[in-house]
Amino acid sequence: MQAFHIPPPGNPELAGRLKHKIDRKTKPLGALGMLEGLALRIGMMQGTETPRISAPHLLVFAGDHGVAHAGVSAYPQEVTWQMVMNYLGGGAAVNVFARASGCELRVIDAGVNHVFAPDPHLIEHKIAMGTKNFIDEPAMTREQCVAAIDAGAQVVRGVNLLGCNALALGEMGIANTTSAAALMAAYTGQAVETCVGRGTGVDDAGMARKHEAIRLALKRHHNAIEPLDILAALGGFEIAMMAGAMLAAAEARMLILVDGFIVGSALLAARAINPAVLGYCVFAHQSDEQGHLAMLREFHAEPLLRLGLRLGEGTGAALALPLVRAACDFLNHMASFESAGVSDRG
Amino acid sequence: MQAFHIPPPGNPELAGRLKHKIDRKTKPLGALGMLEGLALRIGMMQGTETPRISAPHLLVFAGDHGVAHAGVSAYPQEVTWQMVMNYLGGGAAVNVFARASGCELRVIDAGVNHVFAPDPHLIEHKIAMGTKNFIDEPAMTREQCVAAIDAGAQVVRGVNLLGCNALALGEMGIANTTSAAALMAAYTGQAVETCVGRGTGVDDAGMARKHEAIRLALKRHHNAIEPLDILAALGGFEIAMMAGAMLAAAEARMLILVDGFIVGSALLAARAINPAVLGYCVFAHQSDEQGHLAMLREFHAEPLLRLGLRLGEGTGAALALPLVRAACDFLNHMASFESAGVSDRG
Repeated sequence: MQAFHIPPPGNPELAGRLKHKIDRKTKPLGALGMLEGLALRIGMMQGTETPRISAPHLLVFAGDHGVAHAGVSAYPQEVTWQMVMNYLGGGAAVNVFARASGCELRVIDAGVNHVFAPDPHLIEHKIAMGTKNFIDEPAMTREQCVAAIDAGAQVVRGVNLLGCNALALGEMGIANTTSAAALMAAYTGQAVETCVGRGTGVDDAGMARKHEAIRLALKRHHNAIEPLDILAALGGFEIAMMAGAMLAAAEARMLILVDGFIVGSALLAARAINPAVLGYCVFAHQSDEQGHLAMLREFHAEPLLRLGLRLGEGTGAALALPLVRAACDFLNHMASFESAGVSDRG
Repeated sequence: MQAFHIPPPGNPELAGRLKHKIDRKTKPLGALGMLEGLALRIGMMQGTETPRISAPHLLVFAGDHGVAHAGVSAYPQEVTWQMVMNYLGGGAAVNVFARASGCELRVIDAGVNHVFAPDPHLIEHKIAMGTKNFIDEPAMTREQCVAAIDAGAQVVRGVNLLGCNALALGEMGIANTTSAAALMAAYTGQAVETCVGRGTGVDDAGMARKHEAIRLALKRHHNAIEPLDILAALGGFEIAMMAGAMLAAAEARMLILVDGFIVGSALLAARAINPAVLGYCVFAHQSDEQGHLAMLREFHAEPLLRLGLRLGEGTGAALALPLVRAACDFLNHMASFESAGVSDRG
């Protein structure tokens, strides 16, 4: 696998200047709450006191999962490609929210079990027609995993060359909360019960099958220790591709707006490969998926939104983008006590 | 005082149609979390399955407070008019966020201790050069209180005639968290300790003065029982004006995006006058001001954002507006399972 060289964001001297700039704005100290820390972090990522969000892209990675045949989802596998068609047609939630947020949307076929006609908004990187069922064998080969990471990195370098400096990530793949929960258990050592939730809304019997599938998979692949081996054994093509996308984004000092549970599982993989990726991550929201809170704690993350979403697609990231812009905006456009002639506290 | 005739939002038949429309969108049931309930409520307010946010206005009401002279704020009183000038100059946080949210901003001089030059973005409704110190006497007369309510209603009817159907409310007034906390204690019966917070960041000695001021005021005005008498005794001109604005907005079936603690205190007054106003309120955020969580519980409110803001001005409302739009957008623009040809769960 290619190496990802991720520069540390900013430096203490810049941090001091950003802090001073924030504190002189016409507001009580700290009164903009989380937006102040966010503004400082974006300044550090971009290495400037005047950070800007340019040409943000939302990349939706789609892939199918062999474990879907184990009855772990409320929906049939064909919904993956049908929803890809829905994204290309502009009718899904993520389309609506990305449009409203002024965010360009692209769909990446990472490994959907369907052959798509060419479409200007679809990027083809199909690794295979879905992963294998990881209860029985590794979800993908190590070579496929590396190919997926490289493809994700390639897409990100492409949008970066088009002027994009902020990336929102989303995903689609029936049964991918099962893969994400297995990855979470393997990368963090958290109990399976902590990691598993109802995904798109599986019933009790389906939940029992989901638990069992993950337990069997963790047992079968307990020899997978290296970050890449865990990802190959338990991942999805869309998840591996997102991990590569994140690593390449951090390498290019792009802001990464992390959506929910499945994007988070890709970040667990990316972090295992190079922990410096976290310096470029902003957590969009805390979803309603059961394992997400524990996952956010793994990252010491403060999510921007808590709306009880559990849809994936990148919807949370699209909804959080205006807050990321707001953080840059107040830093760039608010008056200071001095410039506005407002008295500071005595 | 004029009577406010507030129609009940929607009806059960429309609620059923809205629920069905939401449930047939291409997403698992309930997967858009709080946005689903919000979409339903906005549909009910507007009496339609296709609600839209039109010409939203953010109204910032400013007023001065006699109790500021009791040392209850970290900032001198002159900051009220200086910040009004900052709003008119476009340099405050609320300007930056309102612009980003596509929200027209107007400032209303409800009773600032300063004479302003005419300005196209300033609406003059000065009741007096600030309220009296409510430790010693009622903050305003009953006549002034009624005049303030009427003025707030008049402004709202004006923007409504210009096509506005969604109103964000904000405020400025040094010492107005003291007035808001006193109103909260009087209207809800909550303990003073629960209602009082640090406002713009008052120190421990200032906090002690703030507690003492409110205790003395509640004792002095314990005979104020009627909603209007409580508001006159303990309120501010900007708070009374916001109460009138809310009542007129609900009468016109406009959505009211409630900002933080001080706007909330105006809603306590408005609710005491006509509880039907709550049917048109959306709570923008939970602020970091200590009494705000308890106040939100009084309203059984689910705030959209929790960003640790404590700035007032309407900043939380401006930041929440994109989420309100998103709720309308998904209802109007998302495909259904049928229209997109996506398989529903088995």
